[in-house]
Amino acid sequence: MGENEESQIIEHHDDEEMEKMRTPRNHARSFLESVASSESVGYSSTQSSHRLLAYSDALLSIIATVMILPVAHTKFQDNEELKQSIQALLTTKIAVYLMTFLIVTVAWAAHIRLFQVIERIDDTLALLNLACMMLITFLPYTFSLMATFPSYTLGILLFCACVMVIGLIQAMIVLYGFSRPFFLNDQIQMSENQAYYKRRILEVIMRVPIMCLFASIFSFIFIPLSYIILAVVIFLPYISQCLKWIRSKAIGGQVEDSPDSVPFYTYHPSEPLSKERVEAFSDGVYAIVATLLILDICEGNVPDPSVVKKEFDNSLIDALQEYGPEYLAYFGSFATVGLLWFVHHSLFLHVTKATRLMGLFNTFSLAFVGGLPLAYQLTHEFPRGSRNELEAVQISCVIIFFAGLFQLAMWVTALFTERETLHPYVRYGGREHTFMLAKLSLYPCVALGTFVFTCVLSRFSTSIFHMMEIGVPFAFLLLRLLVRVALAVIRLLFCPARNDLDSVPVEEEDSQLPINDIVA
Amino acid sequence: MGENEESQIIEHHDDEEMEKMRTPRNHARSFLESVASSESVGYSSTQSSHRLLAYSDALLSIIATVMILPVAHTKFQDNEELKQSIQALLTTKIAVYLMTFLIVTVAWAAHIRLFQVIERIDDTLALLNLACMMLITFLPYTFSLMATFPSYTLGILLFCACVMVIGLIQAMIVLYGFSRPFFLNDQIQMSENQAYYKRRILEVIMRVPIMCLFASIFSFIFIPLSYIILAVVIFLPYISQCLKWIRSKAIGGQVEDSPDSVPFYTYHPSEPLSKERVEAFSDGVYAIVATLLILDICEGNVPDPSVVKKEFDNSLIDALQEYGPEYLAYFGSFATVGLLWFVHHSLFLHVTKATRLMGLFNTFSLAFVGGLPLAYQLTHEFPRGSRNELEAVQISCVIIFFAGLFQLAMWVTALFTERETLHPYVRYGGREHTFMLAKLSLYPCVALGTFVFTCVLSRFSTSIFHMMEIGVPFAFLLLRLLVRVALAVIRLLFCPARNDLDSVPVEEEDSQLPINDIVA
Repeated sequence: MGENEESQIIEHHDDEEMEKMRTPRNHARSFLESVASSESVGYSSTQSSHRLLAYSDALLSIIATVMILPVAHTKFQDNEELKQSIQALLTTKIAVYLMTFLIVTVAWAAHIRLFQVIERIDDTLALLNLACMMLITFLPYTFSLMATFPSYTLGILLFCACVMVIGLIQAMIVLYGFSRPFFLNDQIQMSENQAYYKRRILEVIMRVPIMCLFASIFSFIFIPLSYIILAVVIFLPYISQCLKWIRSKAIGGQVEDSPDSVPFYTYHPSEPLSKERVEAFSDGVYAIVATLLILDICEGNVPDPSVVKKEFDNSLIDALQEYGPEYLAYFGSFATVGLLWFVHHSLFLHVTKATRLMGLFNTFSLAFVGGLPLAYQLTHEFPRGSRNELEAVQISCVIIFFAGLFQLAMWVTALFTERETLHPYVRYGGREHTFMLAKLSLYPCVALGTFVFTCVLSRFSTSIFHMMEIGVPFAFLLLRLLVRVALAVIRLLFCPARNDLDSVPVEEEDSQLPINDIVA
Repeated sequence: MGENEESQIIEHHDDEEMEKMRTPRNHARSFLESVASSESVGYSSTQSSHRLLAYSDALLSIIATVMILPVAHTKFQDNEELKQSIQALLTTKIAVYLMTFLIVTVAWAAHIRLFQVIERIDDTLALLNLACMMLITFLPYTFSLMATFPSYTLGILLFCACVMVIGLIQAMIVLYGFSRPFFLNDQIQMSENQAYYKRRILEVIMRVPIMCLFASIFSFIFIPLSYIILAVVIFLPYISQCLKWIRSKAIGGQVEDSPDSVPFYTYHPSEPLSKERVEAFSDGVYAIVATLLILDICEGNVPDPSVVKKEFDNSLIDALQEYGPEYLAYFGSFATVGLLWFVHHSLFLHVTKATRLMGLFNTFSLAFVGGLPLAYQLTHEFPRGSRNELEAVQISCVIIFFAGLFQLAMWVTALFTERETLHPYVRYGGREHTFMLAKLSLYPCVALGTFVFTCVLSRFSTSIFHMMEIGVPFAFLLLRLLVRVALAVIRLLFCPARNDLDSVPVEEEDSQLPINDIVA
């Protein structure tokens, strides 16, 4: 049985995909056959939407992360206190970055929902989706325009226009999809009240552009009101969900929409999100963050031949030594991003279903990961030994800490509904449970530890910090060993009676023993 | 039968994946069971490598494309002739970009080959792969250092050191993989001469670092020689393949390596490349190119509030009008990138197996796609009506033309071995054949047409060019109609006898008639 589980772990990912494929398959064929006779013109190239969604995820993840660049490229004066500069930044640029990230992820979540309903595409839908993507990638610009000129009507108008057109295109996609039912999710395709679903989905989608229309109208009359409306747009689903929950608690009855409500467009915290797309989006963010650093290095750090000749006596080594800290910072940051990705990857390997709440924590985690280029920029900007250097390291620690913490939060959320969302291996008491916990808490612990160090030691430098960052991977390699040693120690302390059994069959016992209770 | 094919088109992608999964599955289980008893410590978390590879593809595609930024951000003087500036650029920056792209894609191809042999991973392999990625992302920098200081030893040494460490890590991955056979490809796992494969793969992998070692030694003695060695490293597989081919032709006998040679590490033009990874890499390149534009806009085109106050009398509209052409350029470029992706997507929907030669053409096509940010930068940089403006449009046309042409070349290559590589639908005489041809040749034709226009008309402007770019999607929507009309016209001209049958059942005939012969 142990070995059975052993092999399941490779397969559960595949299994899921297989299951997903198998069911649609047969229906799709029968449906196509039945439909083909009546509708024979032009839809011959119905396609799986897999790659279109992967491409959309890549675009959206890059766009979400890109707004960190204006933050990271801000020049700090050397004599200035970093704390003050950061505070000045916080009020505008960082806030804009976080808001853009939030807006893009909201648009992305809407996109997921839409394409959970429409599962197959043709050329027209692909082109409509590309148009939608084009406007979503333009959103960050209009938003930063709005944020830079908060008292101008034009910024609000542009932003609202963008959102409205996106909403209209999504509505067109829905209408087009419902007019050719073989594009739809099988559950809806089989259902008898398609018209109800269509109306409900259109209602949800059109809510946003209609509110933006109001916001743009109010921008001529009273600008603050239109900002309030825009804020409501983003939080609307959460608000309405809260209200519904409160109402259901107050009245006591169960407020169901319809006898067979779809699992989509409900905004329940446990609404399923496509796990594949959450992974793809996260991969995109991690990849672009890792490479933003090398992008800076490639553009800025190749010395000019004439400069080398004049200032460094033709010695390239001397010229490059000037950039020394940046290389170290690059490797350190890449290692951090790579390992945070690795933790994310390990976690999602054991997650069988992603829910909205997990998606939310994932978004928060990614927003902090997106802040890493700022940390990188700060840590190599200041001269050695300055107060600013210490503060830069502290800011980096805070960013890494929260990025890791929200990953941990995802797992904890998953643990609450572990029967549905987690692989048996990492459930409470499973044999990988402790190891997973250790993996997920390594980065928060390291970041916290480093933060404390910087407060205590005055001679802590960024070089040490980057060396530490590069050293963490080895901690990951040692982790399995460390966890086992820790478990053995705990066992020694708490169950001294079983001492004699301890030495040989450690591996087999881990899975059976409720030793994890003691740890957790 | 017609409908059967109709549904196949949605499924053939899935089918392929299913098949791939089903076979490994059973072996993996049996192998794990047999191995688990003997090797019980530490390898419990064997994982599917799917997401690791997706992440690597994302990283590599971004890195490959990033070196276009120094090219695109070059400032041109307004009074300077564009042709001369471009020529000056060509000698260094563009060459560096193309070489980096080539080097990264060679590294990527090596990575594909490696992970076609090692199909399952664990934490150690994942971390080794991340280390490998870290060094590959550093390659472009060392290469541009080498290109900027061609007469310095240090540049060559750094580049060679990078390549050598990458080679060593790959060798470690192979050794680690072969020491735990359940990580391996099933064909090798089942085979009896694993030792032979291991030796052969290590030989191929170690060739590169060994040659780099020689190159770095020679850099102290005679620098040109080390450049020759480095050039040989990249083209080595092609050269040795050519030599082998010539030898086999000269001797006449069949020169087989071994009775059951693996399909990997052969460097045959028909060696299979993982189609999934070619798609993922291409998606990454298209996504980053599409977003490089918005990245520039977000950083550079939000006007400063103080400037608006001073220069534009507090009128935001006036201030933004200055950037007008850039927005148009953004939308035009995004549409172009998006549609080139769309064509690529349509093509790969019908491709059942990607070969090395197709991969090569794909790389060329992507290298030109990566050049689009340069085209974008050029087309909005110059004042209206200048000679430079026309030349900028011409350069854009050339870039788009070749990007499209190499996509077409991929299809033509696939047609040569259509039984293995193409879905029946788009094979010579299939019902989607003509439509696919039209789709693939649309961009080369449009680019060629525009180029001719710019030569003939003196009043052609970039605005018209960008409007055209935005207009092309509608051509795609009309394409199916256009193709059908064109076919009808051709039929009218060449087979006037069958005139009377033409009017109604056009759709059904397309697939049966050898009308495509006339077109092709």
